[in-house]
Amino acid sequence: MEQPLVTLTTDFGRDSSYVGQMKGVLLSGCPGASIHDLSHSIRPQHVREAAIFLADTTPWFSADTLHVAVVDPGVGTSRRIVYVECDRQRYLAPDNGLLSRVLLKAPPTRVISLKNRKYWRSEVSNTFHGRDIFASVAAHLCLGLDPTGLGPEVDDLQTLDWAIPTTTDQQIVGEVICVDSFGNLLTNITVDQLVVRGPESERVVECQGRRITGVCNNYGNRTVGELIALFDSHLRLEIAVVNGNAAQQLDAREGTTVIVY
Amino acid sequence: MEQPLVTLTTDFGRDSSYVGQMKGVLLSGCPGASIHDLSHSIRPQHVREAAIFLADTTPWFSADTLHVAVVDPGVGTSRRIVYVECDRQRYLAPDNGLLSRVLLKAPPTRVISLKNRKYWRSEVSNTFHGRDIFASVAAHLCLGLDPTGLGPEVDDLQTLDWAIPTTTDQQIVGEVICVDSFGNLLTNITVDQLVVRGPESERVVECQGRRITGVCNNYGNRTVGELIALFDSHLRLEIAVVNGNAAQQLDAREGTTVIVY
Amino acid sequence: MEQPLVTLTTDFGRDSSYVGQMKGVLLSGCPGASIHDLSHSIRPQHVREAAIFLADTTPWFSADTLHVAVVDPGVGTSRRIVYVECDRQRYLAPDNGLLSRVLLKAPPTRVISLKNRKYWRSEVSNTFHGRDIFASVAAHLCLGLDPTGLGPEVDDLQTLDWAIPTTTDQQIVGEVICVDSFGNLLTNITVDQLVVRGPESERVVECQGRRITGVCNNYGNRTVGELIALFDSHLRLEIAVVNGNAAQQLDAREGTTVIVY
Repeated sequence: MEQPLVTLTTDFGRDSSYVGQMKGVLLSGCPGASIHDLSHSIRPQHVREAAIFLADTTPWFSADTLHVAVVDPGVGTSRRIVYVECDRQRYLAPDNGLLSRVLLKAPPTRVISLKNRKYWRSEVSNTFHGRDIFASVAAHLCLGLDPTGLGPEVDDLQTLDWAIPTTTDQQIVGEVICVDSFGNLLTNITVDQLVVRGPESERVVECQGRRITGVCNNYGNRTVGELIALFDSHLRLEIAVVNGNAAQQLDAREGTTVIVY
Repeated sequence: MEQPLVTLTTDFGRDSSYVGQMKGVLLSGCPGASIHDLSHSIRPQHVREAAIFLADTTPWFSADTLHVAVVDPGVGTSRRIVYVECDRQRYLAPDNGLLSRVLLKAPPTRVISLKNRKYWRSEVSNTFHGRDIFASVAAHLCLGLDPTGLGPEVDDLQTLDWAIPTTTDQQIVGEVICVDSFGNLLTNITVDQLVVRGPESERVVECQGRRITGVCNNYGNRTVGELIALFDSHLRLEIAVVNGNAAQQLDAREGTTVIVY
Repeated sequence: MEQPLVTLTTDFGRDSSYVGQMKGVLLSGCPGASIHDLSHSIRPQHVREAAIFLADTTPWFSADTLHVAVVDPGVGTSRRIVYVECDRQRYLAPDNGLLSRVLLKAPPTRVISLKNRKYWRSEVSNTFHGRDIFASVAAHLCLGLDPTGLGPEVDDLQTLDWAIPTTTDQQIVGEVICVDSFGNLLTNITVDQLVVRGPESERVVECQGRRITGVCNNYGNRTVGELIALFDSHLRLEIAVVNGNAAQQLDAREGTTVIVY
């Protein structure tokens, strides 16, 4: 039998004991699980950052991979935990908007509220559902449990608002939605919005008062230190400094306005 | 056959070449081993931090998991390396107190001093026993080697002193034993010590001159920025700031006094 | 069948979405691959650091392990991507000198330029060949693809210059080539260069104006805070502070001169 694939995304910190405990419970329940850490460095309680991360990363996995995502400021309150099937992937997550960007791409094909305590650890702490509910349920799913057993189907998932660029005849006004580990600025402006205005080489991109003429194809054809605009691997407009850090250089962050003329 | 489970805990730094070299030797010896990083971010040479980490994390793994722990300021001296069976788990560690908190829970059922060089790499460096002894021996154990072959049984493991809260009629005086990645303060005061004094909602917790009234059940029911006391997932008293960092806010660290009235 | 072993070394940052996307593509193509992260914390675009890292780490793996290395400032330009067999290991890397230190040990036994788009993802972005070429080709190799199919054999790999110590009757002048996670200074002076001058206990090592008499065998036999010289696990001269950080204490870095008398 193939090893069931599970990924983990949390804000616990990469080397925290919490991650190890989740893996212990998961592997105790399903020793054959193939576990892959996606990120444990989501900023603490930053549901929005995790939502972008999941939407960028999970679609690249094979069908039926189980993605366990625990960024959960409401742990121990009455917030729901849900099992979601969407776009051929499977998810376990708190119902706090964490999956709202995954769901922008396709509607969910199944949503179940985890109510059946049979598949939880027998003792459930108030502060660590990642171990006591998520990891335990994930082990059962890896062993082949039909998700129907987890609880009732529901249809009212929490969502988050995602800023949409405003477009006029003169310009597109968008914003930075994420700063990556290189300091590159990822925006909510996509290639199709931009190219309808004419050749990308003639577009002007403005951020923090700095103007960049032309959207180029890659980092490598420009000189070191140059401020450039390009399309990232998800076809979003990105602002970068060749071999440098655009976020620092422009003093830009999530929410900073980006305009395309 | 099931894949033998091995975990790694070191102070090498997550992305150091040393971790990769250990994995190379382990997988060369036992290609089917399933290796899981618990932490490589133990503060350098900080045996006490690693001891708490191991006691918190390893009990969640299935029986007979092999936990390889290398926080080893005495590498290359005559300090012993030991194989220990305790509470259904198996360990390889330097004999420097690293397992002393695991051993608080249960006495070891077997302790062997690694004297038999047959299972070490043929060349052993003076500075990297993690690769040349630990990883090599771990590979042999994963292949099914009877630990009896590793060396003689011994019974005088090194221990560390662990502060025990002092209890009077008026108060419990304990201390912070660990600061987690969120800045939460974990203490050596446990739920059973505290609740014998009456309802937890009426207890007063004092740390760095700040007083908190009542021990609550989780983070989610309080307001952002509030200083709270609660029980962590190991039923230790914990001091936290909702969506914030208690260690920074209170200027608290390992050893800081915590009093419960 | 044994699981094919793949290692990953990049400058993406450990928890970046880019690493997760590579794993997704690799596991989609070859679900049975056993993937091991070596490092994702190479300093951005720092080909030289990655070259040392790879040469230190990959030889410890079993024969035919596939090492995928993506530190690739030229992504999207006409720089080649190569498949290399060397010293029983297999590599996928950009042809930018990344393998030049591995190749110091042994000449390559096969070098192929990845020209055949058949084994790439059907859509290839300009900025993320790690996912669209490297991970896709790695999956095919894990499934048993004969590397001959990847493209034409070539023989003109890019190299980097590596400083070689200069030796006179009076002294050896070398330099720091890497600072590890403990702040230890690894140099390009090797044990065999040093011992021909007489007993290592009588050598004097100078760095940043500080002199150390004698090269010792390990960290553990000296006092805390002492500045020492020793041989690292690759038999290179190393400068360290016992339980401390030599790089900070000496204000030393890559390229800092080290002299042995």
